Amino acid sequence: MINYPNMKTHQTKNNYSNKGMTLEHDIEKSNLFYLTEKIACIYKKPTPVQIVKVEFPARNKAKIVEAYYRSASTTDYNGVFQGHYIDFDAKEFSGATSFPLKNIEPHQIKHLNECSFHGGITFLIVAWKKYGEYYLIPWKVINEIILSQERQSLSYQLFKEKAYLIKEGFNPRLDYLKIVAEHLIEDK
Amino acid sequence: MINYPNMKTHQTKNNYSNKGMTLEHDIEKSNLFYLTEKIACIYKKPTPVQIVKVEFPARNKAKIVEAYYRSASTTDYNGVFQGHYIDFDAKEFSGATSFPLKNIEPHQIKHLNECSFHGGITFLIVAWKKYGEYYLIPWKVINEIILSQERQSLSYQLFKEKAYLIKEGFNPRLDYLKIVAEHLIEDK
Repeated sequence: MINYPNMKTHQTKNNYSNKGMTLEHDIEKSNLFYLTEKIACIYKKPTPVQIVKVEFPARNKAKIVEAYYRSASTTDYNGVFQGHYIDFDAKEFSGATSFPLKNIEPHQIKHLNECSFHGGITFLIVAWKKYGEYYLIPWKVINEIILSQERQSLSYQLFKEKAYLIKEGFNPRLDYLKIVAEHLIEDK
Repeated sequence: MINYPNMKTHQTKNNYSNKGMTLEHDIEKSNLFYLTEKIACIYKKPTPVQIVKVEFPARNKAKIVEAYYRSASTTDYNGVFQGHYIDFDAKEFSGATSFPLKNIEPHQIKHLNECSFHGGITFLIVAWKKYGEYYLIPWKVINEIILSQERQSLSYQLFKEKAYLIKEGFNPRLDYLKIVAEHLIEDK
């Protein structure tokens, strides 16, 4: 079998990786731009770690020698923009037709619902690596589908209709706050 | 010399520690109450750690065997309350007359100024252990003093005049959001 579809996938992936960046790196870079340009103050939270044992080698800083990953209670990103609380997570994904809801962890669903309840602006940034496209999808669009229990995934078509394609550039790399300003604040 | 002052100090300290809690624990407990009672969604950020080496012992979860503390860029606490972005840090302190400004790290000053600029509600919670009192002091009160460069510390008198004594209870342990609601939101 000549594996054309796979070849195509690899080619697309290479194009993507030629940009030399992961989604996390792109968002970090955008957040740094927002911070230095005084547009917003948004940070990635550190990975939660349970520290068990620390050593203090001579003339050296503290060295953690036993620790374990803890499960997170929140999403990865939050901060403040134009007086609004912003909360979101970022997902990279290789599929071509639909984004499986199982990619969103239960604690993330709970947390995004809680932040929405208290008046925060909540969303996911989803990288469709296959197409090299980045979408901001409002949390309420996803949550309606979760609540309906009708589907286990979000179709590419849904992203076309109800999510927002994020403009890519040099700086900010991913101008997701432009979408927040234009579409999510007024809709709050 | 009969060390009456020290005895008094020890007694006060014991009373404080009899409560069996540190400031961090008190705030965590209060935040959990706010979360479960649907009052607000506020979390402590994990300690930033640079992970260097991870091992995967058989039938065991990943074990971090080399890691180092990284310096933080932000404060410890943030979240959302009544649609407002909340950002603060917590300080425990044993003095009797004044709180030294050197207890506030440069990155915390920078971050609280940035959050204030973007419309966040910002403050410190300071535990005066000597008196068993907890104060919420608005960041702008502190920042004015920092900018004036006239003083290196915040007097107890200043706390009496310009900070807010936090009501202690069983649950929430420290009802600091009551002060935010009554004094800081309208003043924003």
